[in-house]
Amino acid sequence: MSKKRGRTEKGEKSRHRLMEAAAEEFARSGYHATKVSDIVKAAGLTQAAFYLYFPSKEAILSELVAEFKQQLRVFGDSGSNVTALAPSDVPAKMRQNIEDVLTFLLKNRELVRVALYESPEATVIHEEITGLIRENARKNWLAGHIREGLALDVVAECIFATIHASAERWLFNGEKSAKQLASEIAEVLQYGMLAHRPKNDLPKA
Amino acid sequence: MSKKRGRTEKGEKSRHRLMEAAAEEFARSGYHATKVSDIVKAAGLTQAAFYLYFPSKEAILSELVAEFKQQLRVFGDSGSNVTALAPSDVPAKMRQNIEDVLTFLLKNRELVRVALYESPEATVIHEEITGLIRENARKNWLAGHIREGLALDVVAECIFATIHASAERWLFNGEKSAKQLASEIAEVLQYGMLAHRPKNDLPKA
Repeated sequence: MSKKRGRTEKGEKSRHRLMEAAAEEFARSGYHATKVSDIVKAAGLTQAAFYLYFPSKEAILSELVAEFKQQLRVFGDSGSNVTALAPSDVPAKMRQNIEDVLTFLLKNRELVRVALYESPEATVIHEEITGLIRENARKNWLAGHIREGLALDVVAECIFATIHASAERWLFNGEKSAKQLASEIAEVLQYGMLAHRPKNDLPKA
Repeated sequence: MSKKRGRTEKGEKSRHRLMEAAAEEFARSGYHATKVSDIVKAAGLTQAAFYLYFPSKEAILSELVAEFKQQLRVFGDSGSNVTALAPSDVPAKMRQNIEDVLTFLLKNRELVRVALYESPEATVIHEEITGLIRENARKNWLAGHIREGLALDVVAECIFATIHASAERWLFNGEKSAKQLASEIAEVLQYGMLAHRPKNDLPKA
């Protein structure tokens, strides 16, 4: 009994090591260019060990994507509560939300790359993420935080595309911290780029 | 002499057909999954004809990327003139610029996908495009069109990421026109998302 549990724990560890190594190799070299032999080498295991846990390279990719979707669901649930805020509290809250997304992407960066670039489900996953953001934006619009007249689907694409591109560009390589990047992104997204507003469109705050 | 010219023209046509077919196949199935036999089939030519013009699949990819970069340079030059505008004229001009970029992406959509997803130079090309946009943003900032205190590198990523993601999502499949999408994107990017501005940050217009 104890021997069997021991073997299972060791198995779980090897399985986990293979998944981590696969995520790193796929993220670095791309799914197509990565061979099973690269994965087992990076994991310090044998080809035979790989096929003990996964029938194919496709299978480990689809497990990685499933893991990302699971992480995403947990993260999405935690962001689904929107409470009405005083206008003066909205900017800091939005900045914090962007920092949370950046921190999530940084923590899962190999999985993010695999899921959004290498997976055959990339388009579906992209739409799932922007769907979560659009729903969050809709709640914020209902709460009066977001102004009238915006296309919320475009708002969601704008938020996610900016966060994702900026993460790839400055966060994953350590050039900017999540905190700094969040505040730079928030500044653009919150008030836009233009120096002047038309006179008939002055804010009511 | 006339015979030779005739052969060259026919050759140019076949070469062009192969490049168009390759762009379509790479954009649809991805570079790695596309075989030379898929390209010649789509072009209605033979494998032998392919190798008359291109030494390899890599070679046709790098020619496609070079063509995209050439198109991009022509387009970038046309957008490099920034003249000072009255504040009331800035929004329409920016909306028009976004529509021009969307129209360019739509016209070159296969090349765009190949250059930004399939090419080994994808990161460099992405940085080249956002570099052009950042330079344009800097000139607009000098002209007083863009407000103080924004990180212009993040502004450029925000503009391009939003335009690119929106084009993939709604423009290439015909769900939204370049004109409609440009006006929805411009509305978000120009004035931001928030319903209220802090009282001490009222615009001066």
